[in-house]
Amino acid sequence: MTHDPMAELNPPPRLLMGPGPVNVDPRVLRAMSMPLLGQFDPVFTRYMNDTMALYRRVFKTKNRWTFVIDGTARAGIEAVIVSIVEPGDVVYVPNFGRFGHLLIEIAERAGAKVVSDERPWGTVFDPADIAKRIKALRPKLVAMVQGDTSTTMCQPLEGIGKACRAAGGFLYVDATASLGGNDLRVDEWQIDACTAGLQKCLSGPPGSAPITLSDRFVEAVNKRKHFERGIRPDDAKEGARPRIASNYFDLAMLMHYWGEMRLNHHTEAASMLYAARECARILLAEGLETAFARHAQASRAALAGIEAMGLEVYGDRRHKMANVTGIVVPRGIDGDAARAMMLKDFGIEIGTSFGPLKGKVWRLGAMGYACRKENLLLTLGALEATLRAQGYKIKSGRGVDAALAAYR
Amino acid sequence: MTHDPMAELNPPPRLLMGPGPVNVDPRVLRAMSMPLLGQFDPVFTRYMNDTMALYRRVFKTKNRWTFVIDGTARAGIEAVIVSIVEPGDVVYVPNFGRFGHLLIEIAERAGAKVVSDERPWGTVFDPADIAKRIKALRPKLVAMVQGDTSTTMCQPLEGIGKACRAAGGFLYVDATASLGGNDLRVDEWQIDACTAGLQKCLSGPPGSAPITLSDRFVEAVNKRKHFERGIRPDDAKEGARPRIASNYFDLAMLMHYWGEMRLNHHTEAASMLYAARECARILLAEGLETAFARHAQASRAALAGIEAMGLEVYGDRRHKMANVTGIVVPRGIDGDAARAMMLKDFGIEIGTSFGPLKGKVWRLGAMGYACRKENLLLTLGALEATLRAQGYKIKSGRGVDAALAAYR
Repeated sequence: MTHDPMAELNPPPRLLMGPGPVNVDPRVLRAMSMPLLGQFDPVFTRYMNDTMALYRRVFKTKNRWTFVIDGTARAGIEAVIVSIVEPGDVVYVPNFGRFGHLLIEIAERAGAKVVSDERPWGTVFDPADIAKRIKALRPKLVAMVQGDTSTTMCQPLEGIGKACRAAGGFLYVDATASLGGNDLRVDEWQIDACTAGLQKCLSGPPGSAPITLSDRFVEAVNKRKHFERGIRPDDAKEGARPRIASNYFDLAMLMHYWGEMRLNHHTEAASMLYAARECARILLAEGLETAFARHAQASRAALAGIEAMGLEVYGDRRHKMANVTGIVVPRGIDGDAARAMMLKDFGIEIGTSFGPLKGKVWRLGAMGYACRKENLLLTLGALEATLRAQGYKIKSGRGVDAALAAYR
Repeated sequence: MTHDPMAELNPPPRLLMGPGPVNVDPRVLRAMSMPLLGQFDPVFTRYMNDTMALYRRVFKTKNRWTFVIDGTARAGIEAVIVSIVEPGDVVYVPNFGRFGHLLIEIAERAGAKVVSDERPWGTVFDPADIAKRIKALRPKLVAMVQGDTSTTMCQPLEGIGKACRAAGGFLYVDATASLGGNDLRVDEWQIDACTAGLQKCLSGPPGSAPITLSDRFVEAVNKRKHFERGIRPDDAKEGARPRIASNYFDLAMLMHYWGEMRLNHHTEAASMLYAARECARILLAEGLETAFARHAQASRAALAGIEAMGLEVYGDRRHKMANVTGIVVPRGIDGDAARAMMLKDFGIEIGTSFGPLKGKVWRLGAMGYACRKENLLLTLGALEATLRAQGYKIKSGRGVDAALAAYR
């Protein structure tokens, strides 16, 4: 059948129980359907300021410079790295999954000398080991992931920021997949820069990256402040350090745009800003601790259900992210065929894996708006039926019952 | 009055008649409110392919590599420049406004040796002069703006692509503000790379940048192809030229994601993709030539109205963009106070200006969905009343009548 590219948009309803993107909260979709305002309309700049205030609470920080980058989660990552790293700077990446590789890759492209340590996939670092390395290496930047969906692991972060400050460096944490579903304390843990995305526990679409920066990080970035050609004010004070290689991701210029100066940079992606603001509102109205508990409960129920079905959970469960669970694909089962059947017959998406885990591990997400009891139970039931249909001897009925019991 | 950042989103209705963003077509807002799909869901990848097919028609090109960048218009600009320019390459920028400065700025950050010529604001280049310079300079890249809203000028482009090819270089055109309202012929004019935004004549929100690349441009970019750490296939063939400095804007990797390989890069901003697809559908359903005529008619009506009121039009009107018109702020009038009154009393936004025109020129836009007879007439009427209120001796009633006559 030929498909007409002019056909009306009509996406089939899907239950998105993979590693993200996940189902968007209908209140966020409603916010995105609101009419636009001019970018310097006083009501619009107030919404920008609201968004800053709300994400301070989401990140548990008092950082003045808390805003959003107009791009997907990795836009936030690149903005941090390219704005702080000058060619030749040492960047240390403790790497325990695919997104650690991404940090190395972006830092290398920014000209950094990257030093990295690895831990086997499915495990995390002891923060004391990281602290020791920081003391010895004295890197300008330590860049690490909090929750790496590629392995489902959540890295403990306490003590690392303190070690960075003692060594005169900065700590950047990529909280894309963890924020809103796992505790994150930017100020208490002395994190200098932290970024996220909307499409995981924040129940929004991809395309806006919340970011927060400590004052000491901002001070370092502002040493590279250079005004844009064509709109440079007469009294512009330029920084002494080399200009940032990217215009779009130049955090010094972005702060001029988000700050009182309101110096034009890009045209803020208004609908995505509405989405980002609504995501934070919804999360804060529920309460951060309540949301963390909801994700933790879903995680416990998923673990109980998976084991009761006779399946194996992937990775070190003491350090599992609350919002995603790895399931080892049983021997003799074609993981992709099972996923395709889940999608086709049940309208449910679960995730495949990358790199060394490709085809070997499914990733079951329960995040944000989609992290609800009924969704988890329905998904376990559908997985069970799918495995039966694929000829696997499953302990029928046990998974859903065990998950339901865990919820009680 | 204290404002609560948790207050419900409730933007006041505004008629956006400035240089953009402009009012979003309600059909685009509706598309954005559709539920999400997984990024590799076959229905979603089909929507990605649809978007490619539709923008080929919008750009008047057969280029296979026609897709969208997840960011605002300048994300598209930076993606082109950082992907093609290697440090030391010569880039030639014929500059006639603020956005020419932006091209210079981004090229410099990418390490280019930039050569630029300038024309006074409010005028354009003779394409023959540009061709002559290209022949002498033999730059790797010629980067230029088609329609620069800062001056309202629309640069004729015919002959420039041919000169680039003869000199072995590439032509990049920033059509952010012109696409959909002014004719643009990517293939016929031999443009190698062209980018845009949704927030002007395409009637969408900012946050997605349509892009198209010629085969010869793609070939050059692919010489810098490097696979991402952590997802590099075993049989990956890496390019011989230096790696692109940005991961987010690496067009070679983005083509892997948009191509049959579907190699994961970012998570596509699904709601913005829905918007981009819908913007193109609406424009193509109207017909490109019909849309150009609609903008041209609004432009003629605006010129007639402005002059009948006794106001001066800014710039060389033979080369004015169809979708925006500069109005010289009359002596003795505070341009910003008048704009504030327009917004407060009439709910209509018109634009201020940048750089040398700051406070001296208003910019009246009539673009995309907002480019309708009633909007133009209401805006002229509101401007007239505002000027009267500010004590300016205006020819009352004449502006609206003249615009109405021009429409007949």
